[in-house]
Amino acid sequence: MKVLTCLKSRQSYLYKGEGDFHSKEGKIEEKTILEHPRGIIENHLGKRFAVCDANDKDKELKMKRGPQILTPKDLGYIAARTGLSKHSKVVEAGAGSGAATLFFSKIAKEVQSYEIREDHVKIVQTNLNSFCTDKNVNLILGDIAEKIEEEKDIDLLFLDLPEPVRILEKNLSKSVNSGHYVVCYLPSMTQVSELVNYCKDTEQYLAEEVSEIIFRKWKVSGNIAHPEHQKETDHTAFLVFVRVL
Amino acid sequence: MKVLTCLKSRQSYLYKGEGDFHSKEGKIEEKTILEHPRGIIENHLGKRFAVCDANDKDKELKMKRGPQILTPKDLGYIAARTGLSKHSKVVEAGAGSGAATLFFSKIAKEVQSYEIREDHVKIVQTNLNSFCTDKNVNLILGDIAEKIEEEKDIDLLFLDLPEPVRILEKNLSKSVNSGHYVVCYLPSMTQVSELVNYCKDTEQYLAEEVSEIIFRKWKVSGNIAHPEHQKETDHTAFLVFVRVL
Amino acid sequence: MKVLTCLKSRQSYLYKGEGDFHSKEGKIEEKTILEHPRGIIENHLGKRFAVCDANDKDKELKMKRGPQILTPKDLGYIAARTGLSKHSKVVEAGAGSGAATLFFSKIAKEVQSYEIREDHVKIVQTNLNSFCTDKNVNLILGDIAEKIEEEKDIDLLFLDLPEPVRILEKNLSKSVNSGHYVVCYLPSMTQVSELVNYCKDTEQYLAEEVSEIIFRKWKVSGNIAHPEHQKETDHTAFLVFVRVL
Amino acid sequence: MKVLTCLKSRQSYLYKGEGDFHSKEGKIEEKTILEHPRGIIENHLGKRFAVCDANDKDKELKMKRGPQILTPKDLGYIAARTGLSKHSKVVEAGAGSGAATLFFSKIAKEVQSYEIREDHVKIVQTNLNSFCTDKNVNLILGDIAEKIEEEKDIDLLFLDLPEPVRILEKNLSKSVNSGHYVVCYLPSMTQVSELVNYCKDTEQYLAEEVSEIIFRKWKVSGNIAHPEHQKETDHTAFLVFVRVL
Repeated sequence: MKVLTCLKSRQSYLYKGEGDFHSKEGKIEEKTILEHPRGIIENHLGKRFAVCDANDKDKELKMKRGPQILTPKDLGYIAARTGLSKHSKVVEAGAGSGAATLFFSKIAKEVQSYEIREDHVKIVQTNLNSFCTDKNVNLILGDIAEKIEEEKDIDLLFLDLPEPVRILEKNLSKSVNSGHYVVCYLPSMTQVSELVNYCKDTEQYLAEEVSEIIFRKWKVSGNIAHPEHQKETDHTAFLVFVRVL
Repeated sequence: MKVLTCLKSRQSYLYKGEGDFHSKEGKIEEKTILEHPRGIIENHLGKRFAVCDANDKDKELKMKRGPQILTPKDLGYIAARTGLSKHSKVVEAGAGSGAATLFFSKIAKEVQSYEIREDHVKIVQTNLNSFCTDKNVNLILGDIAEKIEEEKDIDLLFLDLPEPVRILEKNLSKSVNSGHYVVCYLPSMTQVSELVNYCKDTEQYLAEEVSEIIFRKWKVSGNIAHPEHQKETDHTAFLVFVRVL
Repeated sequence: MKVLTCLKSRQSYLYKGEGDFHSKEGKIEEKTILEHPRGIIENHLGKRFAVCDANDKDKELKMKRGPQILTPKDLGYIAARTGLSKHSKVVEAGAGSGAATLFFSKIAKEVQSYEIREDHVKIVQTNLNSFCTDKNVNLILGDIAEKIEEEKDIDLLFLDLPEPVRILEKNLSKSVNSGHYVVCYLPSMTQVSELVNYCKDTEQYLAEEVSEIIFRKWKVSGNIAHPEHQKETDHTAFLVFVRVL
Repeated sequence: MKVLTCLKSRQSYLYKGEGDFHSKEGKIEEKTILEHPRGIIENHLGKRFAVCDANDKDKELKMKRGPQILTPKDLGYIAARTGLSKHSKVVEAGAGSGAATLFFSKIAKEVQSYEIREDHVKIVQTNLNSFCTDKNVNLILGDIAEKIEEEKDIDLLFLDLPEPVRILEKNLSKSVNSGHYVVCYLPSMTQVSELVNYCKDTEQYLAEEVSEIIFRKWKVSGNIAHPEHQKETDHTAFLVFVRVL
């Protein structure tokens, strides 16, 4: 599979590798791509395309989407901040469209993924079938609040759901390893405030950090160098790192 | 090993697990910690400490430091954006103090790490000996520009050095897998501009994205909820994602 | 003149004060508005509107637009940073659509406004006729580079043009009061870099500050409190404060 | 009065204009300054200083400080967003150290300034005596909540106090002109949330905008161009623009 990027419009296209390539910026014949599988191809309209192999992230762009997809800026920070590694056991809820699930599955040893909505479970399962090569994800239809106490030896518990306190009220000290994190993904500061104040009144949790990761893309070309006008939403959510004592 | 965090000052301390614990916020007897290995301990001065096991990230805070340490916000985004996984081969230069090296070693299958300064190599080696459990890092004293063409099958090439163009001028198409990234970490926009304009004139590279990741910490407690006054530097570097065609 | 704001959609409408009010969110009869000139009116569709007098800023939203409009975040900072007052003399170029012109005219004693394009001058003149009550603006069609040395006693010189160095190369020390500022509005960091390095080599100017002002709007309502997804461009320009020695 | 700025350290010094100039970066004789009142002077240590007249903002840096000083980024945006002009009547509370008072006095026709603490009133009065040339400020020791209903024809009401709802509960519709703003300066998002939700339940106010202004300073010099490490606090407060119906 190939990726073709028009140098002018910066638009990228996934090309399956068979037949001629068609886009609104003109076509390129299969033969031409076979002869120039890497580098620059100029097509009949004078448009120049960068051609290279598709990597896993390119393929994931074809993921089936239901609920909002978690972003690399947030997922990356969570992994780096908590020390996620190939030896980690991750439990997450809710799975949503599976973007976080896939991300964790690539890095961690084992992922338990809870999702309460059946339609979402179907989307996640489709995405895992297509993109998860490690087969290390256990996708569970159900409410994590009812199952979390049965899970053991968790290195990272990731909660992308509106009321994480409902989970923290369970006895997590036998499920999550001491010193490890429950990371809560919360769009609103009011939710954050409620969560942090809940933790304060327990002897089980330390709300160690509240942070947000802001992504700023730049347009750099020739004499131009300035932040780009954002096409995507810039705020996703606040991250709360709750340490299990 | 334990971490003790004073709830008032938010200061964290690493406690080796033997003898009494001493800090400027008072002491706690070994016996008390043994009896309450998780939860809240109040000491003789009425200071309350959260106590839990130390995780890998806590231990890394004791890393020997030479050059500036790469931050989780940047490392995490690089991993998530490029699709780093336990099957990846990473090559990096310069190793610096080894923070990126350690981060990559936890996730990737194999890391080749170049560093031109002998004193830095020693620091990195010390840190790897203490903190790298996977033994999957090959640390090399030398100039990556001279060796890069011998490396093969690279999934991610990370360059934390002032003139990445010097490396890109080599023939990387046999070393880096097609469609994969050279990620350049550059403090100044002028360096970024130079790099992007270099790539434009080649048929080998696509400067796909220039971005910066801004980390914003919040103070949330009781009725308070506002961005914290930054203690750390907020700008680290711009990230340039150069795709190898 | 009135402003009606739909509480649900947050859309604002300017209402001239005669005839019934019509919008895509339903109508309100003139009679009703006359009876409730301030406060909340619920219309036939159950939509609630906040009603109040229009202020000058509301009226300015009807400004004729040509080139991009300068934003309050940038204009306000320029005024506050340079100490603009009702005793100040401002010279600016290029006038663009007149947004900066209008802003300065409201605060300063006197504004000399240069604009090289005749079509822009017409737009600015139309806007000044409609919105500038002080009649303290002198709008000049022409290149400021040719006239700046004739201007005297300037407290603030504002340059919204691509090559401010062309103006700085003139002898400004007899035109701009010593210790006062030339503020340059530059979209690209490459332009900033060129300007700052130019100043460094003179004995006439001190490039005292390069800054950018980032505007972040929040959505706050009920339990919601998070940064809004930006509808407008977030980057406008960098501001360079050049002090005339 | 002069300002001398060391080109290397970027440190600025106010020089009264009599006697030799002394600083930790060496001295300059009075005679030399008299001979070179504008431009660059190199002193005996080879340090180069930019020399120019002091402007009003330079002098204000000598303001007596009590409570935290409001910043140009916030004050400027308030003025530009609300359309402040030389015809405006401003009422503010609490005066604090008088930074906002001074800012408004330079632009507006008339400023009524309330402050509840006697020690702060003294600081503000000292600062007004030194720096306010317009004598258009009426400084009042007392609680604005008790006096606001006597004020009339207000174009801008600026509240830098912890519980603005206490003021909004008064009948402001006879004091603040319809369509004009009460701007509340609030450090915490929890305060903002409370204020916005209060407004929602009235028929008198529209909480039109919640925003924050982020100031980012850049270091630009030679080949360097990157955001500066912040020396100052970056978060000051959220701004709430409450429209009086």
